[in-house]
Amino acid sequence: MKKVAIILSGSGVFDGSEIHEAVLTLLAVSQQGARYQCFAPNVNQMHVVNHLTGEVAETETRNVLVEAARIARGEIADVTVLNHEDFDALILPGGFGAAKNLCDFAVKGGEAAMNSDVLAACQQFAKASKPAGYMCIAPAMIPLVYGQGALATIGTDADTAAGVVALGAEHVDCAVDEIVVDERNKVVSTPAYMLAENISQAAEGISKLVSKVLSMS
Amino acid sequence: MKKVAIILSGSGVFDGSEIHEAVLTLLAVSQQGARYQCFAPNVNQMHVVNHLTGEVAETETRNVLVEAARIARGEIADVTVLNHEDFDALILPGGFGAAKNLCDFAVKGGEAAMNSDVLAACQQFAKASKPAGYMCIAPAMIPLVYGQGALATIGTDADTAAGVVALGAEHVDCAVDEIVVDERNKVVSTPAYMLAENISQAAEGISKLVSKVLSMS
Repeated sequence: MKKVAIILSGSGVFDGSEIHEAVLTLLAVSQQGARYQCFAPNVNQMHVVNHLTGEVAETETRNVLVEAARIARGEIADVTVLNHEDFDALILPGGFGAAKNLCDFAVKGGEAAMNSDVLAACQQFAKASKPAGYMCIAPAMIPLVYGQGALATIGTDADTAAGVVALGAEHVDCAVDEIVVDERNKVVSTPAYMLAENISQAAEGISKLVSKVLSMS
Repeated sequence: MKKVAIILSGSGVFDGSEIHEAVLTLLAVSQQGARYQCFAPNVNQMHVVNHLTGEVAETETRNVLVEAARIARGEIADVTVLNHEDFDALILPGGFGAAKNLCDFAVKGGEAAMNSDVLAACQQFAKASKPAGYMCIAPAMIPLVYGQGALATIGTDADTAAGVVALGAEHVDCAVDEIVVDERNKVVSTPAYMLAENISQAAEGISKLVSKVLSMS
């Protein structure tokens, strides 16, 4: 049975992992006959957003690993212990947490950098030629992991795509139910909630991404 | 297009809604051609559990509605404004939050009572003979909403079932991929993570529950 490492970034679209995308990823991996193990960096979130009002909670701090444990039902580990030898593939769901906690693309755009532990984990898979999937805004990290010219999609938003291109990627527009495949780097991306208007639309692209990633492993 | 009201109880299996169950419910409703609107009570959680360590955070408080908004991507309303006339059916996912924040079954067992606003919302559907679905531990509320003799399942755990029977239900053992249907009351239940060993098992019963609930509406 193939095993997939999944890196989460908290729990909630505005300050962590997009919960639907994360759960749909776990579902697709399980339904396609593979297993998963979740990971997250053991750092504080960039901030905490009240998801009812959209306001930033000025005095509150939450830890990315502790909050991501909610999605993983407690079965999660610090990303520093992720060893690619234990896995066949890697997947990063989206949500603002991917652009706030795993890297700082939400703030720095085309000058973004990644959390060093998350970068090291992702680079293990790249160097071992093991496939990876990035969805929603997480593909902003593809050029930071794979270098100049790697193919990536964040959907069709021109401003966001320009930021990804500034980081070194070749951006490819993509529909919500499709995927972009960089065969050379074995990296797959899909827009998910960058374009999805409902959860079943998101599920289509995510299921295709998981299927392609597993087939390349 | 049919519309389903979904009552959440926070965001995280140990102190709120079981996230997989909640998302799988939204997915099944959407994939089966219906729409949904999420609701939650505007009250503090019974407590906050660190999902990485399992420990109760002694000094922290979180609001059920605010946390449930994470699962609903911000599109959620106070359960006090839920009007059954706007909906065809009602569904309550599980997780400890259902037994800690929507009712106090986790603490009081066979002497449990429901949050009065949640009870009023659920009773609207019962009185209007509109179908409802309860999953995981949420079926403990079925006798409190529908009265003596209503059929309910929490799976196969004898101690938990005894508590549900003490509240007035007739408990029916049920496999993870099956549902129990009380045709008279138009209420459906399924064990979900009371029995599921992985997310695709949970998805099977939940999809069946949603299908049956929609077919009765």
